[in-house]
Amino acid sequence: MRAGTLGIVAGRGRLPQRLATAEAEAGRPVVVAALPGTDMDGFGGVPVFAARYEKLGRLMADLRSRGVDRVVLAGAIARPALDWRRFDLKALAAVPRILRAFRRGDDGLLRVVMAVFEAEGFHVVGAHEILPDLTLSPGAAGRHRPSARDLADIARANGILTALGPVDLGQAAVVAGGLCLGVETIQGTDTLLGFVADTAGGFRRSARGVLVKRPKPGQDLRADMPVIGPGTVAGAARAGLAGIAVAADTVMVLDFAETCRDADAAGLFLWAIDTP
Amino acid sequence: MRAGTLGIVAGRGRLPQRLATAEAEAGRPVVVAALPGTDMDGFGGVPVFAARYEKLGRLMADLRSRGVDRVVLAGAIARPALDWRRFDLKALAAVPRILRAFRRGDDGLLRVVMAVFEAEGFHVVGAHEILPDLTLSPGAAGRHRPSARDLADIARANGILTALGPVDLGQAAVVAGGLCLGVETIQGTDTLLGFVADTAGGFRRSARGVLVKRPKPGQDLRADMPVIGPGTVAGAARAGLAGIAVAADTVMVLDFAETCRDADAAGLFLWAIDTP
Repeated sequence: MRAGTLGIVAGRGRLPQRLATAEAEAGRPVVVAALPGTDMDGFGGVPVFAARYEKLGRLMADLRSRGVDRVVLAGAIARPALDWRRFDLKALAAVPRILRAFRRGDDGLLRVVMAVFEAEGFHVVGAHEILPDLTLSPGAAGRHRPSARDLADIARANGILTALGPVDLGQAAVVAGGLCLGVETIQGTDTLLGFVADTAGGFRRSARGVLVKRPKPGQDLRADMPVIGPGTVAGAARAGLAGIAVAADTVMVLDFAETCRDADAAGLFLWAIDTP
Repeated sequence: MRAGTLGIVAGRGRLPQRLATAEAEAGRPVVVAALPGTDMDGFGGVPVFAARYEKLGRLMADLRSRGVDRVVLAGAIARPALDWRRFDLKALAAVPRILRAFRRGDDGLLRVVMAVFEAEGFHVVGAHEILPDLTLSPGAAGRHRPSARDLADIARANGILTALGPVDLGQAAVVAGGLCLGVETIQGTDTLLGFVADTAGGFRRSARGVLVKRPKPGQDLRADMPVIGPGTVAGAARAGLAGIAVAADTVMVLDFAETCRDADAAGLFLWAIDTP
């Protein structure tokens, strides 16, 4: 069976461009539906059309008219940018589910969008299925490695994230010398690292500390895959951390070469762990 | 049996003064052992002597020589202020336990100190046992009450804190419209509220949000009782929250009259809930 066109529903960040150019370079047919906030640079020759989740019916019709049968939801969307008055029928039909999703955790909205796409016959794939080299294998990705103390901090942060799974919270946490210096909430990882940089001074003792980032237990990676990149390394360096640990295979590293080079240069480890 | 003198081991904050004056006004014998950072004002005629946890042996001898048989650990201590080189023998004997405690959660150190006091024959009591009116009964303490939406946010924050119990983290969390805007880490509640004030803007939607503060499940209230006060109300107001919910009977409200008046004036509810 020949696969049809891949539709990239693009949001903020650089993942959509990565996916589009990789597919185009491999000679596979691809189009981009750009949500508000998408950076329109960097899609090369890949066709791009504007889209809104408020017009879910038109979005799906536009994708279908371009031969799309597989969809990847890529890049963050600005949640408060949803304009309810502009919802079309398909989007309105999903409103009760969207409202429920809004009251739940972080990735609720994209899960609903995904369910609507699937109900309409699209196959929803994850970005990591298209670009498997976006994730890390267990062990060190760069030049530096965590110390025994860092490994203990990684284990404690991981335990905190595991505990938060049932309440649909916590893709990331920072621990230094056994003390938790921050837990990621809706504001995201960069804000968490800024918080640690600003407030951790007196609490760090001699440990530098680690950032651990991983999917929530049971998180659907097609809807909302955890991502790190050069910005994460810069934030971790500003926060004085010893390094970054991510779940192997399930956390995307955007701009891997740059991320790794920056981590090496800043003396930070970049480490992948097996998580349950 | 006639009770001997109460020894207040005082740290930062205004609780030590509250306890000392209440005991003195009730005509009960009381002395204050002031750790570094204790505000020496406001103890009235109650005898105060300087103390350090590094000199735990001398501290206990000083208490005993003043007829102290009951001790209350009151007020926050500055954790990094411990000067290991100055530890006396009693303190050194507790070092392995202190080191283990440091690697655990927030209240580990005070639990160790408490265990040492008890091993030496002191009876360690909680501040709430001396001043039972420091805590709230279930329901509204001020003029305002949580809306149905606020109650849902309180329930979600409470669920998050319950999930964090097993990893010895989380006395407080902020939730608005179902989304978690912050989880308290070692930096404390005021820092959490500052974080929310600085970062929650785009994530709050139409909900104002709530702060929920409670003991960790199984937390020993004698070692580290959660506290709110006028500063918490000011922080919650700056963060734009609708109100503050605390666990009934187990969270101290310092300067109740002022706290309540400030909450009323700022339009915030002050609400106590039964927690498991």
